[in-house]
Amino acid sequence: MNEKNSTAERLEGSLVAENIREALRPRIDAFVTTAQRAPRLGLLLAGDDAGSEVYVRNKILQSEKLGMETDLRRLSASATFSEAMAVVQEFNANLTVDGILVQSPLPRSMGNDAEQRIFDAIDPKKDVDGFNPRNVGRLVQNRATLVPCTPAGIVMLLDRQGVDVSGKHAVVIGRSDIVGKPMAMLLLHRHATVTICHSRTSNLKSIAASADLLVAAVGRPCFVTAEFVKNGAVVIDVGINPMTVREDIVEIFGESSKKVQAFDRRGQVLVGDVHPGVNNVAGGLTPVPGGVGPLTIAMLLSNTVSAAEARLRDSKLSVK
Amino acid sequence: MNEKNSTAERLEGSLVAENIREALRPRIDAFVTTAQRAPRLGLLLAGDDAGSEVYVRNKILQSEKLGMETDLRRLSASATFSEAMAVVQEFNANLTVDGILVQSPLPRSMGNDAEQRIFDAIDPKKDVDGFNPRNVGRLVQNRATLVPCTPAGIVMLLDRQGVDVSGKHAVVIGRSDIVGKPMAMLLLHRHATVTICHSRTSNLKSIAASADLLVAAVGRPCFVTAEFVKNGAVVIDVGINPMTVREDIVEIFGESSKKVQAFDRRGQVLVGDVHPGVNNVAGGLTPVPGGVGPLTIAMLLSNTVSAAEARLRDSKLSVK
Repeated sequence: MNEKNSTAERLEGSLVAENIREALRPRIDAFVTTAQRAPRLGLLLAGDDAGSEVYVRNKILQSEKLGMETDLRRLSASATFSEAMAVVQEFNANLTVDGILVQSPLPRSMGNDAEQRIFDAIDPKKDVDGFNPRNVGRLVQNRATLVPCTPAGIVMLLDRQGVDVSGKHAVVIGRSDIVGKPMAMLLLHRHATVTICHSRTSNLKSIAASADLLVAAVGRPCFVTAEFVKNGAVVIDVGINPMTVREDIVEIFGESSKKVQAFDRRGQVLVGDVHPGVNNVAGGLTPVPGGVGPLTIAMLLSNTVSAAEARLRDSKLSVK
Repeated sequence: MNEKNSTAERLEGSLVAENIREALRPRIDAFVTTAQRAPRLGLLLAGDDAGSEVYVRNKILQSEKLGMETDLRRLSASATFSEAMAVVQEFNANLTVDGILVQSPLPRSMGNDAEQRIFDAIDPKKDVDGFNPRNVGRLVQNRATLVPCTPAGIVMLLDRQGVDVSGKHAVVIGRSDIVGKPMAMLLLHRHATVTICHSRTSNLKSIAASADLLVAAVGRPCFVTAEFVKNGAVVIDVGINPMTVREDIVEIFGESSKKVQAFDRRGQVLVGDVHPGVNNVAGGLTPVPGGVGPLTIAMLLSNTVSAAEARLRDSKLSVK
């Protein structure tokens, strides 16, 4: 617990992500020795979303840095749903593909339910995002093998930081299938008392301010101000929001801040869901960037290795 | 909202259950007309648990009263896991079985994970308890067709009573796969702010007392006292606990209470998780018996009809 007006401990997700990646190396080596090939991640990138390009490039770079293989399939923005589904079916059938990642968002023309239909079709054993309903159900039942990467990464961070949530009040702001709901389940399994808040929540501030652990997955820049935070609470900032108006950035971060300097170089900055003023109240806070983002990618690599190992075990069993 | 010391509205689950059953009649008639057979529920009862006997008898009686068919398979307490699995596989394969119910608990000799392995094996389309991981995942994703019966029944009760939980604070005490977790998800989808509490929760009383809707699924007789309840809150009592010591019953319910009279006739009474003193604080309260219990069975019938209808639609589609 920090005193008010002291500075929150900076919870360096990037350092923990580095630890996660290093711990994967011997597992990958062992896999290569036994399987005579590297774990392989199949990726589908459809359309021309600029953010998706960056994310997919990062995922591929980091996979290959660890000695894993990747297989990127690109579809144009005008590709049909059937073309996307055909890629997934091919990845499903390919014995050397261990993990399948379909980058969101899919082109709108594929329909509103395209992503869910794709996730439904991915072989649950290759579902490294953990979005297939069977994997979602197993997560609820506390026996998941492939857990959605962002909440899984947050749990790793809490563990490495020695944050014990048992009996504590955890408040998750946001109820998405990707972050909010799986985060709530993971914290519940670690014996936290868990509250899920969202856009319809009355008294959001006072509920958030009762949290020992506050997870902000709102998608609104600097939405969670110091008033939302109990003194000494641990705050996890899941948001990655672009800000493009200089005056707004100056108002929040100050004229001489690094954010403004970065804006002046690049014309845009990425900010979290948490206001910098929370630093004066929280006991610990993840930075943006360098907090949850690197953890998410590290857990994708970890899930891919886990999937590869499980598939190798299964294939040995079926040979016996 | 009721004033303190007035009596909470009695939320008659048995009346709502009757409405649910009546609404099923025309659907069953239509099914019979089209399918030339009645919807059928396959039940597996293994072992000699006295409570299970009563539950299964009730489920069969109520199914048949509505014109549905049942197929009860009994296994002795010494039956093996393989025998139980064989019954499930037979139900899965049988085209005239629409729903499959495996009564908990299975005999201990079948192993700790026997129930989950059985639920994993049940055809998700016949999984009228909603315990198969695929159905659990679909519930989390807010697109379930077969929802666990107790929380589904509670939602029906809230709807019929006109209780709107949107933006309100719902507190669920209990985190079981059967009640607590699916209840939390259903309330979240109805836009409640949801807190899940459990045995490790600190400050349980004060968290419960902040709830507009309090769902008690603790399994401890009369555990939730008036101090746990905000004035005017709606309280749902999921507990069904036997009490067998007369003095305890007298102390809680009073010497001249119906509970004591019932005990003097039968040597045992069933009580909920909620203390009768809550009647003086809550705005509404489900009785035990006559509250959640009848709703649970009604939703089992409803799930069986829904499963039958869906299977009929699927078979027509596959004929086309």
